[in-house]
Amino acid sequence: MSVYQATASAPVNIACIKYWGKRDTKLILPTNSSLSVTLHQDHLRSTTTSRADPSFESDRLWLNGKEEDIKAGGRMATCIAEMKRLRKEEVEDKQPNEPKLSSYHVHIASFNNFPTAAGLASSASGFAALVSSLAQLYKLPVSPSTLSLIARQGSGSACRSLYGGFVAWEQGTRADGLDSLAVEVAPQSHWPEMHALICVVSDDKKGTSSTSGMQRTVETSTLLQHRIAHVVPKRMAAISAAIKARDFDAFAQITMADSNQFHAVALDTEPPIFYMNDVSRAIIALIVEYNRVSVEKGHGRKAAYTYDAGPNAVIYTLKENVKEIIELIVRYFPQAVGSFKDVFGLFGGVDVAQTGGKLVEGFNEAVAKKFEVGAVKGLIHTKVGDGPRALGAEESLLNASGQPKTLAA
Amino acid sequence: MSVYQATASAPVNIACIKYWGKRDTKLILPTNSSLSVTLHQDHLRSTTTSRADPSFESDRLWLNGKEEDIKAGGRMATCIAEMKRLRKEEVEDKQPNEPKLSSYHVHIASFNNFPTAAGLASSASGFAALVSSLAQLYKLPVSPSTLSLIARQGSGSACRSLYGGFVAWEQGTRADGLDSLAVEVAPQSHWPEMHALICVVSDDKKGTSSTSGMQRTVETSTLLQHRIAHVVPKRMAAISAAIKARDFDAFAQITMADSNQFHAVALDTEPPIFYMNDVSRAIIALIVEYNRVSVEKGHGRKAAYTYDAGPNAVIYTLKENVKEIIELIVRYFPQAVGSFKDVFGLFGGVDVAQTGGKLVEGFNEAVAKKFEVGAVKGLIHTKVGDGPRALGAEESLLNASGQPKTLAA
Repeated sequence: MSVYQATASAPVNIACIKYWGKRDTKLILPTNSSLSVTLHQDHLRSTTTSRADPSFESDRLWLNGKEEDIKAGGRMATCIAEMKRLRKEEVEDKQPNEPKLSSYHVHIASFNNFPTAAGLASSASGFAALVSSLAQLYKLPVSPSTLSLIARQGSGSACRSLYGGFVAWEQGTRADGLDSLAVEVAPQSHWPEMHALICVVSDDKKGTSSTSGMQRTVETSTLLQHRIAHVVPKRMAAISAAIKARDFDAFAQITMADSNQFHAVALDTEPPIFYMNDVSRAIIALIVEYNRVSVEKGHGRKAAYTYDAGPNAVIYTLKENVKEIIELIVRYFPQAVGSFKDVFGLFGGVDVAQTGGKLVEGFNEAVAKKFEVGAVKGLIHTKVGDGPRALGAEESLLNASGQPKTLAA
Repeated sequence: MSVYQATASAPVNIACIKYWGKRDTKLILPTNSSLSVTLHQDHLRSTTTSRADPSFESDRLWLNGKEEDIKAGGRMATCIAEMKRLRKEEVEDKQPNEPKLSSYHVHIASFNNFPTAAGLASSASGFAALVSSLAQLYKLPVSPSTLSLIARQGSGSACRSLYGGFVAWEQGTRADGLDSLAVEVAPQSHWPEMHALICVVSDDKKGTSSTSGMQRTVETSTLLQHRIAHVVPKRMAAISAAIKARDFDAFAQITMADSNQFHAVALDTEPPIFYMNDVSRAIIALIVEYNRVSVEKGHGRKAAYTYDAGPNAVIYTLKENVKEIIELIVRYFPQAVGSFKDVFGLFGGVDVAQTGGKLVEGFNEAVAKKFEVGAVKGLIHTKVGDGPRALGAEESLLNASGQPKTLAA
């Protein structure tokens, strides 16, 4: 008897033009287009195995080894149902000899290789991996853009994780959402020097979930509609052009402005929403000063911060600048020994916690105070990466009986 | 020989609809109208003595006992010159027997009864007191609105300190600024139950000055113009109506929304401007929760926070609620013993630092953590107050020879 199973991995993406607001909360249709950089799966990824079997009694899902409830009508159930529908329409109805996998229940196991405590949203990579593994299992002859329509219904920003490189989520105008999908602006290979440094920031405050927060902004902000109608469309065009021209200065200017504006409309909400804290603000001050020095020297901006719905900073920069940016961050935010994984070998075996942290010439040290160890509790260095990957059977997360394997977290 | 001298005091005002942006930086003409509550001079005031004497060799000014340079063409020089011009046109030219005080130099001494360290802007009360003392010295037959045209050229928000109660600064449309002045929306006596609690917040970060900050917002924010054209005009009308109807719930809703939006456009600036810190955010969380409980009980909002260009909170509330708000703040922000002056006798001689701080029933304690002593380094309780006062000769800040008296700070 055949085993119908597939394993796929999918990347995290971090937006430069932010998604904030839905025009349809069920279909997850956004109030504005957005654009992101796909991060490298060697460092951050979700891996998902899906199996269809006539003996399974229900659809079941395990996330990091723990079974999750698949609520009827919920986002997970919607994605699975949509994938079964595609299997039936695109494969089984057209090729009657294909097995009727759409009628079988599925068991799904998913695993994130980054700790939840890192504060990185796993819903984007998670839903992208789910949809990718089911597409592989079901042998669907469809494009990543078509799959992005389904991932979008799991978690809006998940649609952007269906491509590598630089990805736009076009808001679309149709009520059924069929034109609200991801498109590739440029592949990973177009600008492989694009690196990212994630600063994981400690927070002792419970944040507002992005799902409820964005709807409160839609309902109460008197600035959001202006952003949607007049600001984002220009920025989408401008940043796409900057990416195509590999113009980092322009990319950085737009990325930082849009991060600021997302947090501005969150603050313009009733009651106001704050995701950044004093540590986030201090990192901004460092990057602003770092860029000021660079611009003064005639080099343009060399770094771009961006913040999602939490206090963590993601700093985009080109490969050649990463080392000095890590030095800068470590000087103000001392790291615990052994906490930083130097996956690109920038420090030749020396732990960054023991470097002291250098400043570039001309940097005004007074722009921020030095924080205690733990204020920035981790740094993750990565770069632009590829889209979802089909993995071999040896990477399966399900055992022979269709239960999740035991994995070290 | 006659001594030509006058002493006046003027109040601090704290805006509910914020002034942020100039359309003319020399005349200090704003991009939008604003509205404030005048605070009581029994607690916070600037006092100024002006003397004109033919023996004085130049215009001189002492602020808190220290001589300040009156720069030619600067704001101080402009205000003094404008007042001399009014003296000449409105008094000396019309009544030739009046002494030609406009041709004499002046000595001016000014004193603030609140420490600079409190982080309260003294420029508004300071320029209002300067203009008021000169108007008295010069016996000018003009209205506070006319004087506000001159105080405005010293510091924009100073124009609102020319009236007590609830005061609008109408932005005006004329290029010469003659219609950009303060008008009384309602006097102090209309709503004397309006109280204010100032939470003085510690900050280890140098802030952006409001003068340079607001111009950066004008130049770089893509949201500010929408605020100016479409949001503020509606809010000015709505809050004026709320004040006239003594509708605290509406007053609070608009005040908090406009504080949030001012900080939102500051954040939408390049590079972004942050005035609130984690302590400011925690105070907001407390007031949001306090109001949530009150609204749930059917009482509407009972408190309104507002933040100017710094981390200090000003909390407006009605007299009947001040005690429980102080208890709430003290619970999360312990006060040093002896630091709070209970000028209204709310605590019957017990130091608030030793009360422990009570919570209202139903308050969710988890909305903020408890901070260390010093995070909020002082609380000042005051209420809506009157406009500038003419003081007697016994309050003079100048001695017989026209030099500043020595005063304890």
